[in-house]
Amino acid sequence: MERHIYLEDIPLDEAWAAWCGALVAAGLWQPLGMEKVPLAEANGRTTATAIWARLSSPHYHASAMDGFAVRAQDSHAATETNPIRLTLVEDFDPETQVGLHPAKAVNTGHPLPAWANAVIMIEHTQPAADEDGRAAIEIRASLPPWQHVRAMGEDMVATELVLPANHTLRPVDLGALAGSGHTAVPVYRRPRVAIIPTGSELISPEDAARDGIRPGQIIEYNSLVLAAQVENWGGDPVRCPIVPDEFEAIQTAVRAAALTHDLILLNAGSSAGSEDYTAHVVQSLGTLLVHGVAVRPGHPVILGMIEIRDRRLEINTQSPISSLQSTIPILGVPGYPVSAALTGEIFVEPLLARWRGQPPYQPQTLTAVLTRKVVSHTGDDDFVRVAVGKVGERTLATPISRGAGVISSLVRADGIVRIPRFSEGADVGTAVTVHLYRPTHEIENSILVIGSHDLTLDLLAQFLAERSQRWLVSANVGSLGGLVALRRGEAHLAGSHLLDPETGEYNVSSIRQYLPGQAIVLVTLVGREQGWIVPKGNPKGLSGWADAARPDVQMVNRQRGAGTRVLFDYELSRLGIAPEQVNGYGREEYTHLAVAAAVASGTADTGLGIRAAARALELDFVPLAHEQYDLVIPQLYFESDLLRPLLDLLYDEDFRTAVAAMPGYDVTPMGQFRNP
Amino acid sequence: MERHIYLEDIPLDEAWAAWCGALVAAGLWQPLGMEKVPLAEANGRTTATAIWARLSSPHYHASAMDGFAVRAQDSHAATETNPIRLTLVEDFDPETQVGLHPAKAVNTGHPLPAWANAVIMIEHTQPAADEDGRAAIEIRASLPPWQHVRAMGEDMVATELVLPANHTLRPVDLGALAGSGHTAVPVYRRPRVAIIPTGSELISPEDAARDGIRPGQIIEYNSLVLAAQVENWGGDPVRCPIVPDEFEAIQTAVRAAALTHDLILLNAGSSAGSEDYTAHVVQSLGTLLVHGVAVRPGHPVILGMIEIRDRRLEINTQSPISSLQSTIPILGVPGYPVSAALTGEIFVEPLLARWRGQPPYQPQTLTAVLTRKVVSHTGDDDFVRVAVGKVGERTLATPISRGAGVISSLVRADGIVRIPRFSEGADVGTAVTVHLYRPTHEIENSILVIGSHDLTLDLLAQFLAERSQRWLVSANVGSLGGLVALRRGEAHLAGSHLLDPETGEYNVSSIRQYLPGQAIVLVTLVGREQGWIVPKGNPKGLSGWADAARPDVQMVNRQRGAGTRVLFDYELSRLGIAPEQVNGYGREEYTHLAVAAAVASGTADTGLGIRAAARALELDFVPLAHEQYDLVIPQLYFESDLLRPLLDLLYDEDFRTAVAAMPGYDVTPMGQFRNP
Repeated sequence: MERHIYLEDIPLDEAWAAWCGALVAAGLWQPLGMEKVPLAEANGRTTATAIWARLSSPHYHASAMDGFAVRAQDSHAATETNPIRLTLVEDFDPETQVGLHPAKAVNTGHPLPAWANAVIMIEHTQPAADEDGRAAIEIRASLPPWQHVRAMGEDMVATELVLPANHTLRPVDLGALAGSGHTAVPVYRRPRVAIIPTGSELISPEDAARDGIRPGQIIEYNSLVLAAQVENWGGDPVRCPIVPDEFEAIQTAVRAAALTHDLILLNAGSSAGSEDYTAHVVQSLGTLLVHGVAVRPGHPVILGMIEIRDRRLEINTQSPISSLQSTIPILGVPGYPVSAALTGEIFVEPLLARWRGQPPYQPQTLTAVLTRKVVSHTGDDDFVRVAVGKVGERTLATPISRGAGVISSLVRADGIVRIPRFSEGADVGTAVTVHLYRPTHEIENSILVIGSHDLTLDLLAQFLAERSQRWLVSANVGSLGGLVALRRGEAHLAGSHLLDPETGEYNVSSIRQYLPGQAIVLVTLVGREQGWIVPKGNPKGLSGWADAARPDVQMVNRQRGAGTRVLFDYELSRLGIAPEQVNGYGREEYTHLAVAAAVASGTADTGLGIRAAARALELDFVPLAHEQYDLVIPQLYFESDLLRPLLDLLYDEDFRTAVAAMPGYDVTPMGQFRNP
Repeated sequence: MERHIYLEDIPLDEAWAAWCGALVAAGLWQPLGMEKVPLAEANGRTTATAIWARLSSPHYHASAMDGFAVRAQDSHAATETNPIRLTLVEDFDPETQVGLHPAKAVNTGHPLPAWANAVIMIEHTQPAADEDGRAAIEIRASLPPWQHVRAMGEDMVATELVLPANHTLRPVDLGALAGSGHTAVPVYRRPRVAIIPTGSELISPEDAARDGIRPGQIIEYNSLVLAAQVENWGGDPVRCPIVPDEFEAIQTAVRAAALTHDLILLNAGSSAGSEDYTAHVVQSLGTLLVHGVAVRPGHPVILGMIEIRDRRLEINTQSPISSLQSTIPILGVPGYPVSAALTGEIFVEPLLARWRGQPPYQPQTLTAVLTRKVVSHTGDDDFVRVAVGKVGERTLATPISRGAGVISSLVRADGIVRIPRFSEGADVGTAVTVHLYRPTHEIENSILVIGSHDLTLDLLAQFLAERSQRWLVSANVGSLGGLVALRRGEAHLAGSHLLDPETGEYNVSSIRQYLPGQAIVLVTLVGREQGWIVPKGNPKGLSGWADAARPDVQMVNRQRGAGTRVLFDYELSRLGIAPEQVNGYGREEYTHLAVAAAVASGTADTGLGIRAAARALELDFVPLAHEQYDLVIPQLYFESDLLRPLLDLLYDEDFRTAVAAMPGYDVTPMGQFRNP
C-alpha cells in the first residue's frame, strides 16, 4: 500500500489569495457571459446589463377612475350651490364646437380624448340634461387639470433606467420590464459545475438501499450536498458517476468534465490516497495552486487550474468568447462531509457569487456567549459549529461535535463561529460572532433541553415543529450534566432520571443538592423500563444484575452523571460488586442508542439501557427495573409562553398515543407535576 | 355601458378572518398532502413527516486516520524511552494467537478489525521487526481505547430522529438523509396555482412587442409578477391565457382551472366592470366571502370559495383524499399592478406558507424616521412604499409615489410601512417600522441623491452597481428641493443646476443662501445644453426664448425650484414676458423626460429641457443655452468611504465615454471641484 503525507497546509487567507489571483489572471474573476431569457423564466436571475424603458408606461394619458373625461377649465365655475352641466359626447372637436362643454364617459384605463385634461369620478356627478335637452352630467365642484389622469410616462418614461446591471430579479421587477416594453432580459448565464465523486469505497445511496452496504463501504452523499449548494448559489450542478481511486480514471473524468463545465469539484474519498490522486491529476492537466489549507474542519483542500484546448461550450450566450476560455478552475474537496460542506461555503460560494456579479453571501450574525471552552490548533482557522439559544436575557452558543465526519452536527448547528488562527481557541464566557444557519425567529423560539436523552424528546421535537412555532434543541450530557446546565443558566429545562438510593425517589434530592433555593417544577415526562440490551436470542443468557460481573460478559457502560449509570452503580454496590470486576466498565457511551449500537456491532455483549433502544436496533431486552424520567423546569420558564406548547403536549391525546406506542414506555404518569 | 359601484370595503383583519375561517372550514388551512421525492430533487422542499435514521452512520467502526489498527491494551507499556513493537498482520485470532501483539495497516474509512479498538497514526510509528523477525511497527506512546476510531453510530444511530417535520431542506440535510439510509424524502406537495388574467383591454408583452400597442391597450404583466411570487413561495404557478371581459368566458376559465388547481388568482382588469364580473363569477360557482378590503393600495380585493364536483387532481401524492376536496379558494386580485403585488403578499403568501407547514414570511425590519408627512384615508390600512437610507446617524424613510399603477415605485422601494387604519397617517419625524425589500447591507451602502434629475445619474447608478457595492437611490424634486433636503440631513448629495441671474454662476449663491455655514464641496458632474423640446420637424418653427409667449404655442413647464424653471423664469423676465402670457405656464412636470413625454403625446407644443430628453423620445431640439450640472456634497460625505466609488467614477474613462456619447453633454468640466 502506498503511503503519502499531506503537503504543508497554508493559511486560509494565503490560499484564498492564490485562488483569486489565478482566477483574475485567467479572466475568470468576473461573470462568464450573458444570455437573454424570457421574462417568465427570469425570476431570481441577475441582470447582466442595465435595462432602459422601451415604452412609456402608461404609453398614453389614461383615466385613473371610472367617470367622465372633461376639460378642467370647463369646471372652474362649479360649486356646491352653483352646479354646471357638461354635455355627454362621443367625439368632440374644439375648433368647430366652440361653446360646448363636453364630457365623455371613460372607465379606468381608458385613453383620455385629446381635448380632455381631467377626469371626474362617476360618484361626483348627477345625470342631467343640458339646455338643448341633450344628455349631460351635473357637477358641483371645480377640478384641477390632470385630476384622476394617469399621465403618459407616470410610471416609466421611455429611455429611463428601469433596472441597473447586477440586479437580482424579483417578481415586481418582471412587471416593470414587461410594462416598459421588454419580453426578455439579458442575465448572467448560470455556470455549469461538475461534481465528480472519487473513491473505491464509495457507493451511491440508491445502490446501498438496493444491495445493502458492507463495512468499509461509504454512502456517497457529498455530491448531493455540493450540488444543492451550487443550485442555491446560482449554478447548474451536474453530478457525475463515482470514479474509482485510479489515477487514469480520475484524469479521464476530469478532462471530460472540463470540456463542458465552468468549474470542477473533485470530491476525494476520505483516504489520503484519493487526495494525492486529485493533486496529481490537477498537476498533470494544469497548475496545482494549493494542496492543504490550514482550516478546521477541511484542511486537505486542493485548488488548481486545468488547461483545456478545443473546448466547446454549447451555451446560449451573447458573448461566446469569454466562455471559450480554456482555463477551468478545479477544487479538490475533502472527503469528510463537514469539511466538504464548509469548503463549499468558503471557496465555491464567493466564486459563484462573483460569476453573477454579486458580493459573497453575508450571513445574518448575532453575538452570543460561549458556554464551553474551545481549543483550536494554533495556525488553523477553526470553524466551530454551535447551537444557539436565548435563555433568560443571555444568548448562548454551545459548541457541538467537532468531528469532520459528523454531518448531523451541521444539520443541528444553528450557526458557525470562526476562531481565527493563532488564538488557540476561546474561553468559556467569550462573546463570539455567530454566522447563523437558521432565521433568528427560530432561534428566538428554540427551547433548549440539556440533560439525559430519551426518545420521547425526539417525538416532542417532532410534535412541536408540526404544531407550534417552537424548535426543541437538545444536547445529551446525562441527567447530572443537565442539572449543572440549569444551574449555569444554559438551558430552559433538563431531562433527568436520577435515583436517590436512600429514598428511592427520582430527582428530588439531586435537585436540592445541585439547584438549592431555585424555584423548580418537576414534571414527569414518562415512566420506562431499564434492563440489559442483548443480542437477538440473548446468547449469554443474561437474567439479572449479577450477570454484570460474569467474566465471559463484555459490558458497555454509560458516562458518569447519566441516570442509567447512577442506577447501575447503585445496583452494583447493593450486590457488593466492584467496578473492576465488570469487563468494559470503563467504556462509556453517551446515549441509550449508542449502547445498543455497541451491542449490535458485537463489540459488547450487553449494556444497561431502555427497552426502546434495544427495539430500535432489533435487539433483545432483559427488563431489570422501572424508572421515572422527569423534566426539570425552573418556575420562570414553566410559566413562559415559550414552553406553553411543550407543556400542552403532555396532555395531548395524539402525543400520548405516539409515546405509548413505543415499547417499554408508560404514559400514565405523564404530566404529573410536583415542586421538589 | 353598465356601471357599478364598489361594495363596501371591510377592514383588512375582518377580511383575513373571513378568508381564514372559510379555509379552516374547508380543511384547507393545512398542507394539502405529501409526495415522496428523490433526494436530488428535494433541496428547498419541506419535510411532511419526521425522518428517522434507517442506518447508523458510520454503519461500522471505522478508522479515522491513516495508520494501524491495534488493541489499546497492547500499547500500555510504551513510552518515549521504552518503545514496544507490534507485529503486522492481515488476520488475527485472539483465541489461537495468544501472546502476539497485532497491528493492521488501515486507511481512513477502513473498517476496524473485530479484535482492534484503536488506531495509531502512521506518523507516530516506525517500521521495525519483531523478535521473530516478522515485519512490525515500533510505537513510543500508549493510546486510549477508541482513539482515532469513528465508532459505529458516531454521527447518527439507526432509529434516531434525523429531521423533524416541517423542516425546509438545506444541502447538508440531504447529506444526513442519504447517510442515514434514505434515497427519497416525504415532502409537502407544491400547490398548483392558476393565474387568470381578465380584461378586454389587455395585451400580452409578446403581442405588444410584435404588433405594437394602441392607446387603451394595457400590457398584461400582473400574471408574470403573481407567477414569480407563487414560485418564490413554494407553489407551481400556471399562467392562463388572457380572458376577455365576458361573464361566461370568465366563468368557463375559472371552472376549468378549478378542476386542476389548488388556488385560483383571478386578476381583474383595472376597470370596475371586470371586478364585478369576478364577484359574479365567484358567486355563481360558490361563495363570495369578501368584496372590497379597506387597504391601500389594493382595495378591490375579492375573496371566495369555488365548489367543484368530480375534481381529478393528478398529483403524485400519498394522501390523495385530501387533494380530492372540492372547495377551491379563489382570490380576485385588483388590476393595478401595485395593488396586485401587495394583494399577493397579504393574502397569497400566508396561505402558501401554511400549505408547506410554515409560518408566514417574516420580513427583516428596521426602524426609520419619516421624512415626509403621510396622509391616509381613515379606515384604511395603508401600505406606504418608502426609500430607506442612512444619512449620518439617522435612518430615513422617504415615502415614494402612492399611485397604485406605478410599479416602478415598488421596484425602487426599499421597503414598506404599514400605517394602521384610524391613524389618518403619520407626521414627519415619526419613527416607523419598515418591512424591508432589500438586504440591510444594500441599504447601508446606498447613496441618497435628492434634487434635480439628470440622465447621467442613471448612468452613475449603473456603473456603481456594476463596479462597486454601492446603490444610488435618487429622488427627483428639483435643484432647490435637493438643497432643502441637504439642509434637513435627508441626502448624501444633491444634483443642482441653479443659475444665479446676477453672477451667471451656477449653484454658489443658492448654496450660500440655503446651506449657510455648512462645509460643502461643489463637484461638476456635466455640462449640458438646454433648449426647446419640439416635435419632429419643429412644426411651429420655434427658434428663441421669445417664442414662449406666442399665442399659438402650448407650453409645458417644470415645477418651482427646478433649475430649468429658474432658467426659464430668468429668460422670461429678461425679455419682459409675464407668466400669464405663456400658454401652459401652470402645467408643471417633474423631470426632463416628463416634459418630453408631454410633447411626444401632443398635449404640449414645447417645453424647456435638455437635448438628451428630446433625443430619448425621438423629438427635435432647439438649443438655447449651456448650463452646468453640479453635485452638491457636504464635506463630511465628500470624504466618506461611502461616496469614494462615486467620486472615482468621475475620472473613469469608461464612464466619461458613456456620458459623452449622450447628445448634448459635455464631459470636459466633469470632476472639477470648488468650495462655494
